[in-house]
Formats: sequence, C-alpha cells, structure tokens
Amino acid sequence: MPLPRSVEFGQGSLALNKAFHAGFSGNHDERLDAAFERFLARLDYRCGGIRRMQHDAPAGAAALLTIQVAGPGQAVQGVDEDESYKLNVTAQQATLTAATDVGAMRGFETFLQLVSMQDGACRLPAVAIDDAPRFRWRGLLVDVVRHFEPVDEVERTVDAMAIAKLNVFHWHLSDDEGFRAESKKFPKLTETASGGQFYTQEQMREVVAYARARGIRVLPEFDMPGHSTSEVLAYSEIGSGEDLKDLHLVYDGPRAELDPSNEKTYKFIDAFVGEMAEIFPDEYYHIGGDETEGKAWLANPRIKAFMDKKGFKTTAELQTYFNQRLLPILAKHHKKVVGWDEILTPGLPKDIMIQSWRGVESLSTGATQGYTGILSAPYYLDAQKTSEQMFLDDVIPADSKLTPDQQKLILGGEICMWAEQLNPVTIDSRIWPRSMAIAERFWSPQSDRDVPDMYRRLRVASLELEEVGLHHFFGPKMLRRSLAGSADPEGLDTLAAVIEPISFGDREDAQHTDSYTSLNRLVDAVVADPPARREIADEVDAVINGHGSDRAAAAMSLRRGFESWQAAGPHLQVLCQRSGRLADAADRVRQFGQLANVGLEALAYMEAHTTPPAGWADQQVAIITDAQKPSALVKFVFLPDLEKLVKAVSAH
Amino acid sequence: MPLPRSVEFGQGSLALNKAFHAGFSGNHDERLDAAFERFLARLDYRCGGIRRMQHDAPAGAAALLTIQVAGPGQAVQGVDEDESYKLNVTAQQATLTAATDVGAMRGFETFLQLVSMQDGACRLPAVAIDDAPRFRWRGLLVDVVRHFEPVDEVERTVDAMAIAKLNVFHWHLSDDEGFRAESKKFPKLTETASGGQFYTQEQMREVVAYARARGIRVLPEFDMPGHSTSEVLAYSEIGSGEDLKDLHLVYDGPRAELDPSNEKTYKFIDAFVGEMAEIFPDEYYHIGGDETEGKAWLANPRIKAFMDKKGFKTTAELQTYFNQRLLPILAKHHKKVVGWDEILTPGLPKDIMIQSWRGVESLSTGATQGYTGILSAPYYLDAQKTSEQMFLDDVIPADSKLTPDQQKLILGGEICMWAEQLNPVTIDSRIWPRSMAIAERFWSPQSDRDVPDMYRRLRVASLELEEVGLHHFFGPKMLRRSLAGSADPEGLDTLAAVIEPISFGDREDAQHTDSYTSLNRLVDAVVADPPARREIADEVDAVINGHGSDRAAAAMSLRRGFESWQAAGPHLQVLCQRSGRLADAADRVRQFGQLANVGLEALAYMEAHTTPPAGWADQQVAIITDAQKPSALVKFVFLPDLEKLVKAVSAH
Repeated sequence: MPLPRSVEFGQGSLALNKAFHAGFSGNHDERLDAAFERFLARLDYRCGGIRRMQHDAPAGAAALLTIQVAGPGQAVQGVDEDESYKLNVTAQQATLTAATDVGAMRGFETFLQLVSMQDGACRLPAVAIDDAPRFRWRGLLVDVVRHFEPVDEVERTVDAMAIAKLNVFHWHLSDDEGFRAESKKFPKLTETASGGQFYTQEQMREVVAYARARGIRVLPEFDMPGHSTSEVLAYSEIGSGEDLKDLHLVYDGPRAELDPSNEKTYKFIDAFVGEMAEIFPDEYYHIGGDETEGKAWLANPRIKAFMDKKGFKTTAELQTYFNQRLLPILAKHHKKVVGWDEILTPGLPKDIMIQSWRGVESLSTGATQGYTGILSAPYYLDAQKTSEQMFLDDVIPADSKLTPDQQKLILGGEICMWAEQLNPVTIDSRIWPRSMAIAERFWSPQSDRDVPDMYRRLRVASLELEEVGLHHFFGPKMLRRSLAGSADPEGLDTLAAVIEPISFGDREDAQHTDSYTSLNRLVDAVVADPPARREIADEVDAVINGHGSDRAAAAMSLRRGFESWQAAGPHLQVLCQRSGRLADAADRVRQFGQLANVGLEALAYMEAHTTPPAGWADQQVAIITDAQKPSALVKFVFLPDLEKLVKAVSAH
Repeated sequence: MPLPRSVEFGQGSLALNKAFHAGFSGNHDERLDAAFERFLARLDYRCGGIRRMQHDAPAGAAALLTIQVAGPGQAVQGVDEDESYKLNVTAQQATLTAATDVGAMRGFETFLQLVSMQDGACRLPAVAIDDAPRFRWRGLLVDVVRHFEPVDEVERTVDAMAIAKLNVFHWHLSDDEGFRAESKKFPKLTETASGGQFYTQEQMREVVAYARARGIRVLPEFDMPGHSTSEVLAYSEIGSGEDLKDLHLVYDGPRAELDPSNEKTYKFIDAFVGEMAEIFPDEYYHIGGDETEGKAWLANPRIKAFMDKKGFKTTAELQTYFNQRLLPILAKHHKKVVGWDEILTPGLPKDIMIQSWRGVESLSTGATQGYTGILSAPYYLDAQKTSEQMFLDDVIPADSKLTPDQQKLILGGEICMWAEQLNPVTIDSRIWPRSMAIAERFWSPQSDRDVPDMYRRLRVASLELEEVGLHHFFGPKMLRRSLAGSADPEGLDTLAAVIEPISFGDREDAQHTDSYTSLNRLVDAVVADPPARREIADEVDAVINGHGSDRAAAAMSLRRGFESWQAAGPHLQVLCQRSGRLADAADRVRQFGQLANVGLEALAYMEAHTTPPAGWADQQVAIITDAQKPSALVKFVFLPDLEKLVKAVSAH
C-alpha cells in the first residue's frame, strides 16, 4: 500500500532465513546507504537475525537482494523527480532497480510490505512489480500554529509519509495564532508572536535534511496578506493599522492583514523570503492567500486612498495587486508560488499554482484557465471522514470534463491536518492510518477502487506505521488510561472501539477550542473510522444475508460484542461520575447499554425465528434515533447497521 | 511515592474546579517558572480546565495554590542541595514552601501525586506534609554504550527520574564497545569508536540543562584504565600494546587498557577531562576503574619493566599508582572522583568515592576506612528482580554495624541499567516502574517497609510516568503487536501478563547478546514483576485462607484467568508456528495450557469439596516442575502460588 501500478505474482516465495545478505550492484551515495541501513533495521525488527546474517555474510557472497540504482537523482528534489522502481522477487533472489535514490527508497517500502512471517521464516511472494506514481505531487499539510508540534513529532510524521510514499511535507508555519519559524533578520516574529514555541533555523534545516533523506520535499507556508496577525503583532509597521495587544491564543481577536499599499511590506517580504530560501531549497514557496477579509484595508483611510488611486473597487483587486507585486520578489529568490483558491482572481499571473481547499470544481476552473493546481478539499482529516470516503474521492475523477492537457496541469493532491483540535498526543491517530488510504489515491491507478481490499491492506500498513515509531495506537490508549485512571481501562476501550469524533465543524460549534483548551476528553481518545465500524457492518450483513457456519460465526461474534458492551456499562457509569473529563459522556454510556440491548434482543428473535411483538421495532428505532443526537463530541459508528438488523428481524 | 518523611491528613479535600489559580508569593527565577509551567500542563492533562482557569483568573485574585520559595539554590547543584519542602492542603487552599527551586519541584511532584478525580472534580486530600530525603545521592546509571539511546530517550528517562525524586543521572558514556561523547580535542574517539552513535557536545549540554531544569545532576562516566577498548582503538599510543582492528560490536574481542606507565596517557586524560569539565559542571566525575584485568600490562615488556622498577608486584598496585596520578589531574579540573569497588586498594587517597557493585559489605569496608560511598549492587535492573526485593534491600540496613559517623559517609545509592540486553524500545519498561520502588528506598524513612502499600502506590505512579511520555506500557505492547502481526494481539497479551524475563546472567548464558542481536523476541516484550504476579498470589491466598464473598470472588477471578489462558492456547500455537521470532516459545505455550488446566482442576476439586484421587497432586506438581525449567528466556511468575493451590486442594 499504495497499490503498485503493475503487479504480477510468480511461483513460490523467497525466505530470508538462510544467510540473507543484501547489497548494491553499482554506485550508491551516502543518502542511499543511510536509507539502506534503515531498511535493514526495519527488516531486522520484523524478521530477526537480519543484521546478524548481513554481518556474517562472507565477502563476495552472492546477495539475496541486489539493489541497482542508476544515479542519486536531483540535487534538490523537484516535482519531476523519477520515483519509479522495479522489484523482482523469485524463490531464489530479489532485485530492486531504480533510476534514483528516491525510486529505490520507494522500492524498499514495497519490499518491506511484501515481507511477512510464514512457516517460521520471513518470506516474500515471488512477484514482478513495475511501479511509478500516478501523481507527481502527493503532499501532507501539517498546521503547527494552532497547536505546536515539536521536531520529534514532525520527523515522526515524515517517517510515516515515507511509508505512504507521500513526497511533499507542507509545513504551515505561520498564521494568526502564531509564528513558528525563527528569523534572524526579523527576530520579533518569534520573540513576540510564538509564545516560545517555534523552530530554530537549525531545526528547520534538520527537518529539511531529514525529509530529503526520505525522498520528501518540504514546502514552507507563510501566509500573506491575510492570516498574518502574528507578523503584524511583531512588526506593526507592515500591518494595516490594526491595534494588536497579544497573540491570538483564544483565537477570536481581530485579525490583521499586511498592508499592500506600503513599500515597507514588500521590503519585509523580500528580506524574509530571501532568508527562508536559504533554509528551504524547494522550488515552490506557499504564500497562503486565503480568507483575506480586507476589513482593515477598508478601515484604513490611507489604504482606501491607495485603492481609489489605483482604481480598485474591491479588496480582491487589491489582493491581486499584492500578488502581482509578490511574484517578482519570489522569482528573484528562484521560487515558484503556491496559494489557496482565493488568489485565483482575474489578472493573476499564470505561473502561480493553486491549492484548492474549495473542491474539484474550483481546481478545474484554474486548470481551464491554464493554472497548475493540487487538490485538498476532500482530504481534510479533521472532517473525520472514513478512509473509504477519502480513498474514493479522486483528484481527477473518471468523469472529469477536463481535456488531457488540462488534466496534466493538476499535479496531485495534499492531505490537510489543521490543528485547532490537535496536539502532540493525538496528531498521529488523527493523521494515520487514514492518510495511507489517501496516499494510495495519489499514487495508484485511477482504477484502484476496491474498498474491502484497501481496508485489508490498511490494517497491515497500520502495524508498519507503528514499526517506525508512530503513536496512532498508543496516543488514544494513553488518553484512555488517563481518563480511567487505570493501566487497563477495559470498559473505556470497549466503548472507544465503536465511537468516533464528530467533524471539525460540529466540534467547533459545540466546543470552541483554542490554546487554553484541554484536549484530553473522550473525543480525543477515539479515532475516526475505527475498524469495528466495518467489522460490525460485515457481521450484520452476514447475519442477514449469510448462510451456515459463516452466519453462525457472525451472530456469535455480534452477540459477544453486545454482551461486552453491556458488561462495560457499570464500570463506565462509575467513571463518568468520578471524572469531570468524562461527565458529559454519561448520556453516551447510557445509550451504549441500551444499544447493546437492542442488538441482543434482535439476535434473540432472529435465532428463535420469532417475529417480535408489534411496536418492538419502533421502540428500538427510537433508541437508535436518540443515540444519533449530538452528545459528548462523539458519535456511534454502528447505528445504520444496528437499524438494519432491527428491521431485518421485524421483517422476518 | 516516594513516601514523604511526615504526612498528617486533615479533614475534607480541596477541589480544583472552582476558578483554580496558582501563583508565587515572593521571588521565582526562570527555572522555577518553567517547572511551574510543566506542573500546570500536567495538572491540566490530568484534570482539564486548569490552564483555562489560570488564564481567566482576575488579576489580584487570591491563589488556591500559593508557592513560596526562599531562593533558587546552588548555581551548580551539589550533593548538599536542600531538597526539602512543606506542602499544606486544607479544604480551602494549598501552600507549598521550599528553600530552593529543587525543593519546590519535589513539592510539585507530591502535589500531582495527591490529585485524583473524585465526584466529578480533581481533588487533593487535606494534608500537612513535611518532607526531605533520607539520602542525598539518589542516582540512576544508564549505559548508552552497549546499546545507544538517542537524546529523546535520555531526556524521557530524566523526566521519569524527576517524578521518582531521583537526583543523579549517571551517564555511562564510554566502554569497550564504544565511545559516545564527542571530543573536539580527540575527534577520533567518536570517528573511530562510536559507529556514528554518539552525543555531540551540544547535545550533552542540552541534557545537562534539561536535567538541571528538573533538579537532577549529571554524573559522566569515562572508564579508565580498564573498559577502555574504545579509547585505545582511537588512540593506540595510550594503550598497552594491544592490536585492535575494530570496535567490539560482537563484545568478545580482546579488551584493552590504558598504559599507566606512559606519560602520554596522563596528558590525554588531562586534556580530555578539561574538555569534559566544560560540559559537565558537576563536582563529581566517574572514572570507572572496575574489572581492569591487567593482561595487556603483564604482556607488555615495557610496562612490566616499569612495574619492576616501581616495585609493584601486582597489577592492582599499578592501578593504585594510576589512580594516584589521576587524582591531581581531576583536582586541577575541580572534580572529585567516583570509582567502582575495585579502586579501593591500599594506598588509595581518601577523597575518592566508592560506588559499590559488589554489595553492602564492600561498601561498609570502604566506610570503615573513611571513604564515602554509594550502593548499587542490589539495584541492578537487569537482574530482573521484583520491585519488592529491591525496595526491601536497604542502603544502610537496620542491623548495620557501622557507627553513625561511618553511616554518614554513605551518601546514598544508584540504580544501574546496563545495556547489553536493552534498546530504545525496551528501556522504559526495563527501568520503570520498578525504579520507583528503589527511589522510595533512597528517599523515604528506613521504617517504610510496607510492601502491599508500596505496590498500591506503584500502580498509581506507573500511570503518572506515562503522563510525562514514558513508553513502559507502550514499548512491550508494540513488540507484541509486531510479534503477533496484529493490532490486538490478545493471546500474546494474556501470556505476557504472567511471564517475565530471566535474569541478565541466565539470558547471557542462553543467548549472548551483542550489537547485531535482534532484541525483538518474547523476552523483550514482557516486563519483570508484572502486576499479575501479586494478583494471582493474593487470589490464591484468599481462596485458601479467605472466607465468604471475598473467597468466592477470588475463586471466580482465578477461574476466569485460567480459562483465558486456555482460550489463548490455539492462537498462540499458530503464532509460534508462523513466526521464527516465537518459535522457541512453543514449549512455554504448551506449558501455559497445561498450567491453566492444573489451576482449573484444583479449583474444581476445591469447589466440590472433594479430595482428588491419589497421585493427582504429584502429577500437577510434575507439570509445574516441568514449567520451571529454562525455556525461551522467560519464566512464569505464578508457579509457587499454583503449587500452593494444588497442595491446599490435596490436603483438603
């Protein structure tokens, strides 16, 4: 995962337990050597004995895995870096070939995914894989402003991206709520507007090098002219006259905008971009450009006069002017510009790339006008959608009206992880494993739309993520231990397995989060699209439509599940009474017990081949409907299936 | 935990849910401010709403928690830093007073330990605590040579030490198998002898600052004249003529020793210690000094001639000479010397401190001769002893023959975590939570010997450790997921809960580990002294000696446990066949099922009030005896209790 472009299975399998030894045929540079060492370490963790065998291999012995790489690839990885590779495995040996280091790294990941323990040894199936990505730009945006993520967490994210074959780490480094990148030319940016939470230049260089070592580009984003409160707080002379006192830690003060009428603004940008260009070698630079309200512009007589003088009737025109001034500055520093949808206004120069948070339509509009673009709208992780939904949402849908040439302008997509409701404990479980499914959408052929197969592979990939240090299992579990005050919070685990967070918007309506909010409640301790959702759906389906032992096994498994929900009830009630952090979950706990009962009764009628009394189904549906109401920032994942079960019984 | 010197409970409790607000009365420096912020963040994670209430508190509002600290304490924390504090909690408010920052930090930890969720709010019991440590030196040695631990893991360890109120991080930085500290004067030390795994000077400074921020000293150890293979590999001119080719990654090559007859050796030491003294400000410096074999000395004619000339008959005399030469060098750099037992030879200057790995006797010998000392022998974590055993082993036992003045020379103790069988995945679960019990021995009064109460508090403290990021639950669980290839390795968890690693020595005999060994087997995925050991023991005791509903509940719980062992059997057998990493556990799995059966039969006879047939008990004991045999590097923790149950039934 992601599924390769072409896979042909052969006969037998290759076992890694007989004097395994891997080596290069031909040149390999330091970056590739380091990637190879990491590959061996992971293989060793999975299989055992690998580093021992590698060490003990006699000099000159034929390698079981031969790696052949034509060259290192681009000095600064670009959009057109060749990421293709070929992996051939027979029962006797394996060969990995690639044009670049990056291609070889992609191949290492595929090799690791093919390895599994069988009959006492690590084995790979015999297979011929010829692989290359569908889209060249496969990104993940991480907002480190609303809540800060230390370098460790950033690097952990990059590790996981490498497994998912993602290739752009989009680092959202500034926003109204803070400025996270150290500038030596403008030290007040972090002195005044970071609350002490920022990356030093050395740390940013470290992250860039860390990402490059894994074949991943780093795209920095510094928002202009809107979402710029932190800059204006630090340097009010480039603002539009806003009166700012403090950082927006409660996220609701007035927002500030850079002053497009002021030459100082462009001098600031020139100097700042120049400084950042030394740290971020990528050919692209993200200027933000979204949600510029222009209120402060209109409120400032000097800016208003400037607009009148230039004949600008709307703030959008002023923003276009700003963007036009920006482009030569970015070009001077050898940067191409990326911005969000809103920058797409009449008169926008064609060499700007559009990142669409508004959707496929907006992206298509750009492409028909000749702009390159990437799609993000369907891939907002905090919408808490299922892997399935995001996997099926294509960057260029099969029914796209774009011409082939226009389609070529769409470089790919980016997953977005905004951080209003995120912190270092929850980040991994919010991003992963769901992003693996989106990464597959970005990499694999358009025709890859088999959802059950995707989930099957996602389960395995999820374990791989933990192997490189991800906390997507651990983080939520740790919060549940904290909520329960117990090393083994069984009842809470049982509940958590079948609920998920409500969407960003629903949570924002119910609980405005800011930097003082404690993100330590039940909603933070559960994950979107938990595996139980599909398991219950499949079991209900088998009970209704299946036959024989499959049906019996599904019924048994469902019954055990419902019984465990019931058993968890008393313990959960105690927890809700004891802990203020769980007090609002009391309703959900009550519903949980009722829903268990609904399920058990339905199964009992079904097994007794008895039609339930009149009104029974209505009562059960009422219970299910009650459980659909918003409560405790979480929702049950099985309600449609439970309703299906009830209806099947009453129609029996 | 550790238990304070004096605790007096009052009436009622203090709730933290009504406009909680904490603040200082009097001066507070930056270090204390940072500690206070960390304290608030942890309180917020535990209780929720704390940072919000702190932010919303009106200016001038009376604080619910007032902190009063007389001064910052020593510029470089010394052995005699005042760590005492007083904490008074009433139903209305709390006051924390201390003489130093460090004392206040100890008080913060106690405050956090008193907080728990009750009736929907975080509460502390009304209490008056007057606390100070019994021993001034309470250390933890971590060997980062045999297996390297990145800075993250080191800092995580320091975080946990702060919770345990330990105050010396003893950093074992050099040994035969590697040199882990960057020297700019002697760059070959890490270029040649670290395999790329070392700390830069900047990182070491960072760790020292990190520890100081938590009231913890850093004691560096660089071994001389033995355990010095890495130095001699890098700079053969200070060695004793050994012919070294490579780093000892397989831990079995010839060991090298510094040449005490060579003036270059002392020049090297002078320059090196001078460089390290700039990084490590602590008043002490550990020179190792243990296990110097002297083979190379005797084999080298020049050194032999030097010994003859000086009239040294043994290599021990030569080592004493070496130590005597060392002392003025260390003194020049304002360092006091610590060394292991072996340096205690006739003629050793009195101002050396002895760290005893040989035991209380050896330590007492030093004290009677006027040497200061610390005890480590009983606290070797890789001996895999129980918390109980290490907790009861006192630094100065109640029956000590030492005079009060001699006892004063014993400054405290140090826990030792050697790393032959350790890596970053397992380090936390090997050190914690057992080290909390030892830390209590070092801090709390001699009279504190209530084992069940210690375990009760250890369970709670174990959750606290996770709160600051420890992986002691997560690491073993992650390995079990990897072993099982499943996100929920239930069967393996069931087995893991009742087995523990064999001791270092037993494992070393069965499996010599070195840097090529994969530490990813069952033994690495289980912990010493798992909670189930005591639970089963208590339940067996209740079944045999208890009455009424307690007895019935214990029997029920035991039966459920045995049934879950049986149920895990088939799944575990499949795993052992599939995975080469579990192949050697097949015997343990077979025994697990048999032992479950022993337990179930015993309970059945007991409940039926039936005496089992003749020979039954012998058969069961034979099964238990079989399970005592070494296998798979692990052992069952419940065998004595199961045997007790069998005997009680047959005596019935």
